[in-house]
Amino acid sequence: MSRMFLRTLRDDPADAEVPSHKLLVRAGYIRRVAPGIYSWLPLGLRVLAKVEAIVREEMEAMGAQEVRFPALLPREPYDVTDRWTEYGPNLFRLKDRRGNDMLLGPTHEEMFSLLVKDLYSSYKDLPLSLFQIQTKYRDEARPRAGILRGREFIMKDSYSFDVDDAGLEASYQAHRDAYVRIFERLGFEYVIVAADSGAMGGSASEEFLAVSETGEDTFVRSAGGYAANVEAVTTVAPDPVTFDGLPAAHAEQTPDTPTIDTLVNHLNEAFPRDDRPWHAADTLKNVLVVLRNPDGTREPLAIGVPGDREVDAKRLETQVAPAEVEPFEDKDFAAHPALVKGYIGPGALGTENESGIRYLTDPRVADGSRWVTGANVAGSHVIDLVAGRDFTSDGSIEAAEVRAGDPAPDGSGPLSLARGIEMGHIFQLGRKYAEALGLKVLDENGKLVTVTMGSYGVGISRAVAAVAEYAHDDLGLAWPAELAPFDVHLVVAGKDPSIVEAGERLYADLQAAGLDVLFDDRPGKVSPGVKFKDAELIGVPITVVVGRGVADGVVELKRRATGDREDVAISDLVARLA
Amino acid sequence: MSRMFLRTLRDDPADAEVPSHKLLVRAGYIRRVAPGIYSWLPLGLRVLAKVEAIVREEMEAMGAQEVRFPALLPREPYDVTDRWTEYGPNLFRLKDRRGNDMLLGPTHEEMFSLLVKDLYSSYKDLPLSLFQIQTKYRDEARPRAGILRGREFIMKDSYSFDVDDAGLEASYQAHRDAYVRIFERLGFEYVIVAADSGAMGGSASEEFLAVSETGEDTFVRSAGGYAANVEAVTTVAPDPVTFDGLPAAHAEQTPDTPTIDTLVNHLNEAFPRDDRPWHAADTLKNVLVVLRNPDGTREPLAIGVPGDREVDAKRLETQVAPAEVEPFEDKDFAAHPALVKGYIGPGALGTENESGIRYLTDPRVADGSRWVTGANVAGSHVIDLVAGRDFTSDGSIEAAEVRAGDPAPDGSGPLSLARGIEMGHIFQLGRKYAEALGLKVLDENGKLVTVTMGSYGVGISRAVAAVAEYAHDDLGLAWPAELAPFDVHLVVAGKDPSIVEAGERLYADLQAAGLDVLFDDRPGKVSPGVKFKDAELIGVPITVVVGRGVADGVVELKRRATGDREDVAISDLVARLA
Repeated sequence: MSRMFLRTLRDDPADAEVPSHKLLVRAGYIRRVAPGIYSWLPLGLRVLAKVEAIVREEMEAMGAQEVRFPALLPREPYDVTDRWTEYGPNLFRLKDRRGNDMLLGPTHEEMFSLLVKDLYSSYKDLPLSLFQIQTKYRDEARPRAGILRGREFIMKDSYSFDVDDAGLEASYQAHRDAYVRIFERLGFEYVIVAADSGAMGGSASEEFLAVSETGEDTFVRSAGGYAANVEAVTTVAPDPVTFDGLPAAHAEQTPDTPTIDTLVNHLNEAFPRDDRPWHAADTLKNVLVVLRNPDGTREPLAIGVPGDREVDAKRLETQVAPAEVEPFEDKDFAAHPALVKGYIGPGALGTENESGIRYLTDPRVADGSRWVTGANVAGSHVIDLVAGRDFTSDGSIEAAEVRAGDPAPDGSGPLSLARGIEMGHIFQLGRKYAEALGLKVLDENGKLVTVTMGSYGVGISRAVAAVAEYAHDDLGLAWPAELAPFDVHLVVAGKDPSIVEAGERLYADLQAAGLDVLFDDRPGKVSPGVKFKDAELIGVPITVVVGRGVADGVVELKRRATGDREDVAISDLVARLA
Repeated sequence: MSRMFLRTLRDDPADAEVPSHKLLVRAGYIRRVAPGIYSWLPLGLRVLAKVEAIVREEMEAMGAQEVRFPALLPREPYDVTDRWTEYGPNLFRLKDRRGNDMLLGPTHEEMFSLLVKDLYSSYKDLPLSLFQIQTKYRDEARPRAGILRGREFIMKDSYSFDVDDAGLEASYQAHRDAYVRIFERLGFEYVIVAADSGAMGGSASEEFLAVSETGEDTFVRSAGGYAANVEAVTTVAPDPVTFDGLPAAHAEQTPDTPTIDTLVNHLNEAFPRDDRPWHAADTLKNVLVVLRNPDGTREPLAIGVPGDREVDAKRLETQVAPAEVEPFEDKDFAAHPALVKGYIGPGALGTENESGIRYLTDPRVADGSRWVTGANVAGSHVIDLVAGRDFTSDGSIEAAEVRAGDPAPDGSGPLSLARGIEMGHIFQLGRKYAEALGLKVLDENGKLVTVTMGSYGVGISRAVAAVAEYAHDDLGLAWPAELAPFDVHLVVAGKDPSIVEAGERLYADLQAAGLDVLFDDRPGKVSPGVKFKDAELIGVPITVVVGRGVADGVVELKRRATGDREDVAISDLVARLA
């Protein structure tokens, strides 16, 4: 450590919110260069290399073959699949000196498809799984949390190629199994959840989430085994009921009730129910947003949800991707005079109605369900408005928030919510990319068939942060052995020549035994207290303190994770640790 | 090989000119994505990893510490050193979604300087050497020869930081020694030549060139040990002579002599010398070009060289960098009516003269040297025009071509010329970057002093091509053992089950002995001839052919480099190869 390029810092970086970000910077693992763009310092690079090695081993073990694509890519293949446009502002675009459009690859489905098309032509060449460990780029709107969500980051991405659906299913399962082994070795708590395929297209996908309070993803679980990313949760809709015997809709004066709360209070005062009080869930709230399409066009959208639920921004974004969601602004209201703020009802919404605004409703708005909702007149609501009888929407949308206690869609019980960090994502892409790019092979009968693909990603740099989120305490990092930058942190705690010499001897002996040793040989004026604090911050699993005990032939062995400490005879130490 | 992602190609790629490019593509090591941008296929990636490992080992052995910077960088630091502008069109520039200017790093002097400034503050922290192995970007005007000159490529770059000149000298020497070890291990013939520091600034630099006819760099050597890149060769100028007794200049009619040849012929006919015939070397040729500065401004420049020599484009470019050289066009002549095409002389040139064009002359144009040169009148030249007496230039420039037989500047004999591939470049940068970016440390007396730096690069991806240039023949590649993608290429040559089984057993045994084996287990319809051709093309050092000899307990062992073949008892093979 007297020569190592390392300075631990006393203070958290000003922009850091989550523990991994604070600690990785303070302990000298990473250093910020620009928003979402970091350098790896010697300690960090060692952990990164270990994550990379684990992922590479498991990918090779499942038979995937490693290649490496450039990060700087031509536009054309991404035009064919329309992702040049669909990625919107998340894509780093540039022009080369000849004016050609290029991009920094966010993911490489197109390139792998073209490579396989280039070299392979027969069903006999398949199945094939290729992977790369490579730097990727996404111009995130909100880079955050250090390397947890960076704009330049390292990913393992792999792609499977099969001639039929059964093959894709098998390749997907092989990847899933490999991912389970990878995440077991990374050592944090993780869950596998059903996911929405989102902008990638494809039929099935699952995410591997590191369970963490600081994660950006919310997922749900039921006691009965259901698990899904909140974006992928489907609502248990009530069965439709017939309209027979339902009361007719009737508009009522509801002055000064522009919010759900004021409305429910007014209903209970002015129009009390016989059976029970009115609830927010009896009302139909119509939320307006604007979708910005990748080509820049804007389209208003109305979303009807039960009044006791908010629209969940991430669920909505997932549903409307690649469009982005923007607020519905005053100018938009001005453009649609049929909308009466605070009293908007289905009568004014829908492509067939006055505003012409597309209207999508929550699955709970099933045929025969009864609602209190805006009458499109200031200070007035309609009661007993029946879906399917009095209004229809342009379709259904899964955009309402999911809440703890909601039923799991598979009937396995009520859901609980937790947060996680997306560490892996596996997709059954199907034929979308192969079709677009003309990736076909001859089948057994000599007929050209389109290949079916899977795509699979693990965040390598992100994993370093995810492990740090999991493996730390108030004092600093506490790496699991398989990922630690060193096996042993050897501290010379004392200026006495006998202590210094004993330290140097142990350093040589431990290295000779094949251990990676971080040797704190800093001279005497760096106090033992400072050295211990650094050791705790850096988080090597085992610290060996060479101090006054040397006179009695012992050193102290501390375990970072538990804080356990014991004296060990110097003569036993190497054998013990090796 | 029955499962490997590999297809060897019969034909050379259409755009390939040099052997390494042709063979690396045909043998399935790399694949083109865009001009100067390549993917690494499984075979190529294995060689690349071996080069990387050698470089990493030697850098660590010399005490350099590994870090890794992003490739996507903010503009600001490169503005401080002016390289944002000076790099001109060679820099990939882009804007992020917030409109911030960013670049893809071509080299990282600025970033390393800032990182060290960030963490270090005292002379006690130095010396320090940091390195990274990382993807770099240069938007080359003429990407060529596959991965020999790519636009995205992998480099090892390192940087040394010292408190004084002696420290820099020692760090530079340590790097130089490490580079010698690296290039010895890479196994191609190389030379270390004095180099021009060019746009990097700094005081001293040397290049490591792989000797190769296909190289882009020309270098010179003398029998006495001088070696330099042609751009760095200094001309042996004659001593100045006094003007006493030199004849006066006299303009003469020289009709129809717009070229040096026609002029020399005319001189010998109309104005014969007593002592010897006129030579082209007696004439002073004035060449006009335009410099385009990085900021886009254009500046004409006249260069006076002896008439027997051309201006060397690369030597000129090195001298005027970061400006680029463009032709002097008709419009430029039109803008300078004092210039008479074919008869341009010093009288019209120089900032003090009529054209105002800056005029630089070859070092051979020493004071007292006598020249025949244009009289700035059509059909007329001046004879006995004496430098320093009849004209002066605005300075000297090393832009004339260097020729075999020219004297070495150190007096070590005549020069010979050869070509090479630039594989490494080491610079004593000095304080240029540290000064610009404020990298200072406290010295022993507590005074702030500016750090002095070195910068050192090795082309990692380029090395794969350079080795291939060196190690191939008409049949294909022929890797040295330390870089080969596999240790052994095991070929099953026959359909007989006993042969197939023997092959499979040897595959298992060789792998168990720790050897990396490429196993050509392709089924019987792939003929032995095809397999042998592929083995020769791929170039693994040793091929083991399992064929009919199995009946007698022998296999054939072939050495790729020499073509030697011998029968080896199966029972001895593993021990022999391990």
